Amino acid sequence: MSGNDENLIVEVDQQIARITLNRPERRNALSLALMRELLDCLRSFGESREISAVILAAAGNVFSSGHDLSEMRGRTIGDYRKLFEVCVEMMTEIQRIPQPVIAEVQGVATAAGCQLVATCDLAVASETAKFATPGVRIGLFCSTPMVALTRAVGRKRALEMLMTGAPIDARTAAEWGLVNRVVPAEQLRTEAENLARQIAEASPMTLGLGKHAFYTQIDLDQAKAYDYTREVMSLNAMAADAQEGICAFLEKRPPQWSGK
Amino acid sequence: MSGNDENLIVEVDQQIARITLNRPERRNALSLALMRELLDCLRSFGESREISAVILAAAGNVFSSGHDLSEMRGRTIGDYRKLFEVCVEMMTEIQRIPQPVIAEVQGVATAAGCQLVATCDLAVASETAKFATPGVRIGLFCSTPMVALTRAVGRKRALEMLMTGAPIDARTAAEWGLVNRVVPAEQLRTEAENLARQIAEASPMTLGLGKHAFYTQIDLDQAKAYDYTREVMSLNAMAADAQEGICAFLEKRPPQWSGK
Amino acid sequence: MSGNDENLIVEVDQQIARITLNRPERRNALSLALMRELLDCLRSFGESREISAVILAAAGNVFSSGHDLSEMRGRTIGDYRKLFEVCVEMMTEIQRIPQPVIAEVQGVATAAGCQLVATCDLAVASETAKFATPGVRIGLFCSTPMVALTRAVGRKRALEMLMTGAPIDARTAAEWGLVNRVVPAEQLRTEAENLARQIAEASPMTLGLGKHAFYTQIDLDQAKAYDYTREVMSLNAMAADAQEGICAFLEKRPPQWSGK
Repeated sequence: MSGNDENLIVEVDQQIARITLNRPERRNALSLALMRELLDCLRSFGESREISAVILAAAGNVFSSGHDLSEMRGRTIGDYRKLFEVCVEMMTEIQRIPQPVIAEVQGVATAAGCQLVATCDLAVASETAKFATPGVRIGLFCSTPMVALTRAVGRKRALEMLMTGAPIDARTAAEWGLVNRVVPAEQLRTEAENLARQIAEASPMTLGLGKHAFYTQIDLDQAKAYDYTREVMSLNAMAADAQEGICAFLEKRPPQWSGK
Repeated sequence: MSGNDENLIVEVDQQIARITLNRPERRNALSLALMRELLDCLRSFGESREISAVILAAAGNVFSSGHDLSEMRGRTIGDYRKLFEVCVEMMTEIQRIPQPVIAEVQGVATAAGCQLVATCDLAVASETAKFATPGVRIGLFCSTPMVALTRAVGRKRALEMLMTGAPIDARTAAEWGLVNRVVPAEQLRTEAENLARQIAEASPMTLGLGKHAFYTQIDLDQAKAYDYTREVMSLNAMAADAQEGICAFLEKRPPQWSGK
Repeated sequence: MSGNDENLIVEVDQQIARITLNRPERRNALSLALMRELLDCLRSFGESREISAVILAAAGNVFSSGHDLSEMRGRTIGDYRKLFEVCVEMMTEIQRIPQPVIAEVQGVATAAGCQLVATCDLAVASETAKFATPGVRIGLFCSTPMVALTRAVGRKRALEMLMTGAPIDARTAAEWGLVNRVVPAEQLRTEAENLARQIAEASPMTLGLGKHAFYTQIDLDQAKAYDYTREVMSLNAMAADAQEGICAFLEKRPPQWSGK
């Protein structure tokens, strides 16, 4: 399966989907049209049993420069609300679909582009990647990006990025927890794909259940998080794939997942 | 004082209690029986004025491999609920008792074993220790362990451990905030004991009050956390040990704690 | 503009305000009088359109040793409540005023002095700076300081500082996210001022709006944080300075801020 349109290139190989932001001449700006296509694409993968992991990559030298500023001049409040509504919906969908979503960051990721990286479950970056939230410099503070950024890198580091707009390099992003791994540019795609394949060996039922539980428990206080995850784990233990996995482990053989 | 039974070895020396997980042949798996004994032991220390710190160690090469999988095959939902209820109760007790609880991690800590390390107030690890949440590989996502893990290491790092199941080494665990210190294996016990003794020099009243306040404020928003801790600190200032400590400091002499 | 009184030195140069804690002979202890003056000073800067950033520095070898212990012997509960109420009010004001507040830490910052650093939006430290929350050693647990400390450095690191009272050095503070940058002592003031000037190039309207949004969203769960910041960013986009900034960027010219 392979598709190509103006904004996104979509490829699927052995159950790993690869979405490539494909507006390199516009620095992969997240136009309203692109965000809607990305949202639709994520939704459809989320419902597919043929997809076990999603890689989000980008064409050209820039991962994404964030919102498309040419769409942001002289619009009505209704237009802006619609734009940020779709943006938040798309970001939220990344965490809502059952498959892991891995950002493969080959270049600069700024503003909502940085938010996109912070939002993905995991992120692999090239040594040449950079990250910034420079909205403050054009009078438009990166207020929605900071929701994801703050929760990834903590307070003082987020505030420095948000208030100065200055970029951090890939090593710093890894030290701060914004990305998981940094590799030379020529190994980037292989690293992202290996990570996706490694995760995809697991039962998709288990992965989907775990990812959902992760984002549900993270905003609860600890007592509530335990009340919730205790029940999730009890139900998980009853599932066919858990029983198969436990037996296979005790019998020292590879498990056979039924997806149930 | 010294005790020994099937699952735990308990020793007390100069008000420092040492609990050793003692099922090395079962990789110190947290069977229901072991968890109940550990819970009882923690409760009893929590009520004792003779104990000023608790070290949680383990016999053999493995710190703990988590739940006992031999107890998790073909059980009822009621059995699983009971298992995770006792597990959460035991983890919660570690943070509820007034004394500091220090994990002394000599080997691999996986799944609920990793949760145990994440849950202790402090953790010292040997250079040879490793940490993983590999449940995803046997179909049983580490949903209760992730409550403690996420709150120790943050989102992307927790997700990588949870989704891949791959281990991290002790240095990485220290960089991510999962453990406080890493030392050569032969210095591990001394390091944990020195840390315990250093903390135990403080007034036990103050330590217990502070530990309780720590876990209460951490899940509140900042304004509520300040409303709460303002009152805690005002009351603390009235206590005999605070007045003694302030006077001793101003008079440049060692304080004499009354425990009040 | 320049002022000088017993507790604080206040200077303003090119819209950057510099407040210097000026009780070096008392290790810049935060007496009730000093905290009230600092609170008034912050409030007045917060309302001023002539100030675009605030640097909080200290005279002598110590940044601040925290509360003034000579004020904490044998007082009534009402006295202590008043003391911590003013302290929390002052700390909160740092985050409430629209301008960025940068701690310039030249020496030891302990207890409420450490809280002050953790509370500032940003912090630059000299290589010789140290940080500690040693209240536990004098019977008075650093319960209000821990609200800020925990939210800056995470659980296990905060607990180690709180339970042992032992200091960390400036490099460690940077690795843990308590300060943003560490520089040689002789570059400290220049570094803080350059950071302030870099931030002050932005539209003050945008900076103030963004800082307010930052501290509002940080204690919300992610869904609520997005509901809130979506609206903030939509309104921000309508503002004159955002429209000017976007146009200037697209036209490759420097923006002219109106502050609206």
